[in-house]
Amino acid sequence: MSFSFSLDCSDGAARAGVFTTPHGPVETPAFMPVGTLAAVKALDPMDLTAMGAGMILSNAYHLHLRPGDELIREMGGLHRFMGWNGPILTDSGGFQVFSLATLRSVSEDGVEFQSHIDGSRRFFTPESVIGIERNLGADVIMQFDHVIPGQSDEATARDASERSVRWLARCLAEFNKLDAADVSQRGSQALFPVVQGGTHARIRRDAAESVMGMDDWKGYAVGGLSVGEDKQTMYEMLEVVHEILPAGRPRYLMGVGFPEDLIEGIRRGVDLFDCVAPTRMGRNGTVFTTAGRLNIKRAENRSDQRPLDPGCACAACARFSRAYLRHLFVSDEILGLRLLSLHNVHFLLSLVRSARLAIASGTFDAWSSDWLARYHLRKMSV
Amino acid sequence: MSFSFSLDCSDGAARAGVFTTPHGPVETPAFMPVGTLAAVKALDPMDLTAMGAGMILSNAYHLHLRPGDELIREMGGLHRFMGWNGPILTDSGGFQVFSLATLRSVSEDGVEFQSHIDGSRRFFTPESVIGIERNLGADVIMQFDHVIPGQSDEATARDASERSVRWLARCLAEFNKLDAADVSQRGSQALFPVVQGGTHARIRRDAAESVMGMDDWKGYAVGGLSVGEDKQTMYEMLEVVHEILPAGRPRYLMGVGFPEDLIEGIRRGVDLFDCVAPTRMGRNGTVFTTAGRLNIKRAENRSDQRPLDPGCACAACARFSRAYLRHLFVSDEILGLRLLSLHNVHFLLSLVRSARLAIASGTFDAWSSDWLARYHLRKMSV
Repeated sequence: MSFSFSLDCSDGAARAGVFTTPHGPVETPAFMPVGTLAAVKALDPMDLTAMGAGMILSNAYHLHLRPGDELIREMGGLHRFMGWNGPILTDSGGFQVFSLATLRSVSEDGVEFQSHIDGSRRFFTPESVIGIERNLGADVIMQFDHVIPGQSDEATARDASERSVRWLARCLAEFNKLDAADVSQRGSQALFPVVQGGTHARIRRDAAESVMGMDDWKGYAVGGLSVGEDKQTMYEMLEVVHEILPAGRPRYLMGVGFPEDLIEGIRRGVDLFDCVAPTRMGRNGTVFTTAGRLNIKRAENRSDQRPLDPGCACAACARFSRAYLRHLFVSDEILGLRLLSLHNVHFLLSLVRSARLAIASGTFDAWSSDWLARYHLRKMSV
Repeated sequence: MSFSFSLDCSDGAARAGVFTTPHGPVETPAFMPVGTLAAVKALDPMDLTAMGAGMILSNAYHLHLRPGDELIREMGGLHRFMGWNGPILTDSGGFQVFSLATLRSVSEDGVEFQSHIDGSRRFFTPESVIGIERNLGADVIMQFDHVIPGQSDEATARDASERSVRWLARCLAEFNKLDAADVSQRGSQALFPVVQGGTHARIRRDAAESVMGMDDWKGYAVGGLSVGEDKQTMYEMLEVVHEILPAGRPRYLMGVGFPEDLIEGIRRGVDLFDCVAPTRMGRNGTVFTTAGRLNIKRAENRSDQRPLDPGCACAACARFSRAYLRHLFVSDEILGLRLLSLHNVHFLLSLVRSARLAIASGTFDAWSSDWLARYHLRKMSV
């Protein structure tokens, strides 16, 4: 009811639109900063607002384990708990159950695993995960899916993909049941399916068609990419899936967020992205710049008066030199983690805003070629 | 030339004034947040501005070792380097040489020691420290002094205090020499003497008189207190020294900054304070509240919807519950360190502002009794 998607314009397969949620509109293409544990690491919600972040991400697996989804419900839901009144999307935890947790045992019913925090035994089913995501109360919630390693063979990929489709049906049934019972919050959430299928075009096609046959979803996610396969394969899978998915719904490429991937994803019709890279890299001292990546800890930055990126308008670049930021890192000052995370998130938010303008003016191809040539210049020169 | 101190009013020995520096005025009494390594730990200069911080502190010993005072000079000085255009005071490093560094050897000439970072051998003299502080370029710079343990006997205290006075004469000579040679920055710094003397009233008196006989200083510091002696002794030393120091100059009580100490210091005529406690405690999960201290990590805060301090207007209390802040600490989220540091610094800045208003309205005694009774209520009830 409160969800809609309108396409403003397109340029080739690239699209500029607006995804409307109960907590406000999101201009697409959009990069969603990741707040795994109900906080975008090292940043304050005020920083995200100041940078013009639209939607942010959080994670059902992590929040279920700590502090607990029922506590968050009791505290008024995730928006209120974390002080972010804009749109939120929660990942279901499928990826985490299959990557972080140990001693998994997968059955048709669900996944038994041990918490990566305290080793306690847990059991996730499509129904229980939807219950968790209902408690958290994000605007968009993801189905529970069966995630497999990036290079899995066809039989494994088909098995997991078909199980994800069957689990989607159970997620939907539970979602509709909870939504119908929850009078005050009815229609406040949208459930997104995840199209899986590894690197196998036929399985991806089958998955997309099965998912579409089940409901007229408010949006569609593509999962299981950028997990070790080569980039060309990822782009091919996007093209295969986007031929099938309805043009009038937002498409979310899960877990993808390096600058070049954003541009190539947008070129192929992706509307939503998320990735922990900007904050993780920031905490490790590495930043994106329009001339490639830069490691602030390197000795060459010791007395460099320039900002991280001379063309950047973020709160770090506007005030601080590379010399100062290097000093903060060398001295283990927490402010350094904040400023580099802030720059990286700003960089990606700014990149997708530029892409949106290029789409609107019908110059996406030229803009993206120029951008990528400049970004890769440094790599070529070293 | 650019320094002045005007007393607006007083209430008993408590004073409200304005200390003017080349980087702007500081309303006194003032609490100065500490940015040891050219950053107030876990906070951004924007946070300090938003909280109304006047003057901040940094440290010559630490900055000499890392990143180097000459680098900071090359980068345009400390204000520009750290993105703080307000007043700054640098401590000389006397305290650090005698507490952090190892293998010290003290002579009349100076102190030889090993860096606490890499073990390298260093030699500080009154002259070399003034050179370091000139390179850093803070508004107020402290003399190099001989700091001794809090409970030292009278002979040790007298020896160190008299050496500090002799070193002050050398600091002043070097300061005047550098200031005269530095045409563009002449008059941009004020050198403060430090009155030492341990817990011995006679030595304190002698030190204050010796220091005053040497120059008409822009301000006076009292050092070597709050280092293990009991509170009554500290208050007595303040009273002894303030009988002698000129009323028309600001008085700075070094390293003191717990709420009760601020109030008792103000009551005895102190104008400037600094302390690492608010940020250090914040990083450890402990906050000041008007009803005493609170450890956010305690289980009782797990589902507590209240802010840290219901009466507080800081950026943490305005937006976040104890439940959320506890979650951040339990989950090792960096945002938690920032928010609790921010609250604690705001708490002390707000406390001294309230004290200033009470002095202006002639109600300091009543205000401070009420404040302290409320602050200690919690302690008495547990």
